[in-house]
Formats: sequence, C-alpha cells, structure tokens
Amino acid sequence: MNEYPSILLDAAVREMSSLPGIGRKTALRLVLNLLRRTPEEVDSFAGAMTRLRHEVRYCRCCHNLSDSDLCPVCSSHSRDRHLICVVENVQDVMSVENTGQYNGLYHVLGGVISPIDGIGPGDLEIDSLVARIEPENIREVIFALPATMEGDTTNFYIYRRLTGTGVRVSQIARGVAVGNELEYTDEITLGRSIVNRTEFHT
Amino acid sequence: MNEYPSILLDAAVREMSSLPGIGRKTALRLVLNLLRRTPEEVDSFAGAMTRLRHEVRYCRCCHNLSDSDLCPVCSSHSRDRHLICVVENVQDVMSVENTGQYNGLYHVLGGVISPIDGIGPGDLEIDSLVARIEPENIREVIFALPATMEGDTTNFYIYRRLTGTGVRVSQIARGVAVGNELEYTDEITLGRSIVNRTEFHT
Repeated sequence: MNEYPSILLDAAVREMSSLPGIGRKTALRLVLNLLRRTPEEVDSFAGAMTRLRHEVRYCRCCHNLSDSDLCPVCSSHSRDRHLICVVENVQDVMSVENTGQYNGLYHVLGGVISPIDGIGPGDLEIDSLVARIEPENIREVIFALPATMEGDTTNFYIYRRLTGTGVRVSQIARGVAVGNELEYTDEITLGRSIVNRTEFHT
Repeated sequence: MNEYPSILLDAAVREMSSLPGIGRKTALRLVLNLLRRTPEEVDSFAGAMTRLRHEVRYCRCCHNLSDSDLCPVCSSHSRDRHLICVVENVQDVMSVENTGQYNGLYHVLGGVISPIDGIGPGDLEIDSLVARIEPENIREVIFALPATMEGDTTNFYIYRRLTGTGVRVSQIARGVAVGNELEYTDEITLGRSIVNRTEFHT
C-alpha cells in the first residue's frame, strides 16, 4: 500500500507541500480540510489561485501588482508625485504602505543585484526607474532595499546611474528598532544607529 | 488604497488564509510563491485540489478514501480479513498503517458521537460496521478512537451494538509513550498505564 490510499490525495498533498514552509503533515491536514468543503468552495479556492496567476498585471509605471494598466498608487491623485521609494518586491510596497507614513510613489525592482544567483542590473527594473526621473520630474529617490551586501550593491549601482540627473537620493534609516533593548541589538545595527544619530527633539 | 494593490491578490489571500492555521501573512507569502511560478504550474496546483474534491471516492466497505469502489486495504489479498480496526477518520488509517504493526481491515466512522456538536450515532458509519461483522466473519473489532469523552461514548455505543454477535472487542493500549519520562506524563495516562500493566518479558 502507498503512503496514501488515493493517488488523487497523493497528488494534492504533493502540490500543497510544494509551498514554502508546508511539510507533508501540514499539507495533508490542509488538503483534508479542503476535502471536507463543498465542491463549489474548493472550486472557489482553486479558481482564486489560477485567476490571480493568469489575470494579474503589473503596473507599467512602478511594476507593482495591479488589476489594471496603472496600480492604485500610480493612478492616485492624492500622492506626492515627486518622490519614489525603491523596493525589492511587492511585499515591501505593502509593508511601507502599512506604516501609513509614506505618501509618495514606488518603484519595484523585482529583486536585487546578486551575481551569485546570476541576477544582474539588466534583470531588474533599473532602466525603467532611471527613465522615470526626468519625465515625471522626480525630486527624491528613497532606497528601501534590504540591508544586505546585495542590497547595498544595488543601492550603489542605482546611485551611480542617477548621477547627473540632479535627483536627491536618500535611504531609509537603520537603527535600533522601536521598543528593542540595546543589549539585544546586533552590533552593526547599534553601531549604525550611533553613527547616524539624529537631533534630539522635545 | 486597499490592503492589497489587486483584488485578485486579495481574493487569493482570502482563500488561502481560510485554511486552518494559515494566517494572513503566511497566506500572502504562499500566494506570492504561486505567483512566481509558471501558469501551468499554478494550474497543476489548483487542478490537483479540484480533481481530488470532485473525483475522490470512499471505499464502499470501510469508507476510507479511495480512487475506486474498494480501497487498497479492502481489496488486498494479504490482509487479515477477520480483524477490523475502528478509527475516527482517514488520517487515523494512515497513522495506523505507518506503524507497520497492523495487517487487518479498517472501518472509518467519519467522526465520533458528540451531542454538543449535534453528531449522533446515525451520522456515523456505525450501522455499516455492525452489518459487516457476520457476512465478513469478523472475529475481532479493535477500537482506536480518541481517548476523549466523545471517543469513550462512541466505544461504549458500538460495544453495546456488537453484543450478541460473538465478536471479540478490544481497544488500543493507552500508556506512557515510548521514550517519555514519567515526570512529564499526565496523571491520567500514567494512572491507566499502571492499571493496565502488562507482563514483563525478557
């Protein structure tokens, strides 16, 4: 006897466990949960995944996920259109949006430069970022890429590409997280937070 | 702006997070993983779920999941056809099979008696179990239901129904798990393991 009494079940568990962080046991639990639903509910579940993959589009301006040609941010009239926040992927757009502290535009690179993974500048949306600066009259580009060697490389590469456009280039502050104790903060972060200390306001 | 830049994404995340133990953040991560795959791969993922739900069958004899009229266990010629292990659901069949210690048949009740959830004997595959005893010449029924009040109630109900058939009724041993320390074992389990102690063999 196989591990499972049905090859259909086996196939479903195999697909479910192909998702990141989902092992065979969890996959079986999730699949058996689907099996307890009505056929219409399972069709709705499966349909949502296939529709997303087949029908989702990417904003032609900032390359964020979108249902139409322009994403909600790029087509909004209430955003500051002189600011671009450069992020690695679509999750990062959501993270910044969730802060409620940013009202400018975005540019999703689709990754960071990583020679070890074979990802060069040409694989990322860097040309399209540079091409936005003058026509859109952008005044500031804010780097919000990960604080890794790849992120730093990408920051530096884009910075060089922007030289001469006159645009201001900044990056998000790195430092001790709000609420964190100094003794549990890693040395690099704590060191940066001292070097980049800010004026004390009351 | 919505939480997500796309209503398709929103729908997919909502469906994914309807699975047990999958929160919004995990659901987003899983959905974005699907989004990075080819359309064919996503179709394969979704198709496995819908095919399972629409095409899976239940063994007409033991009610385990099956691709055909009889499940692999019931149609096997190498099993002991005089033994039936009574379990709550299809996962339990897999758990017992994985031990490699059981070579008899199964009967999947589809739940346990639970008045609080409105589940009575008529909602479970109890009649069909009782109906198997004589024609199949069953000699022993082994209860492997959960050690809860509902499981005990169900055991007792089935036991009463089997009175007069002459079938032997047993239940799986409860006791201190192999490898567990006594001090971390709950009192009820430890107590049962003393009451139901077995002969020491060398």
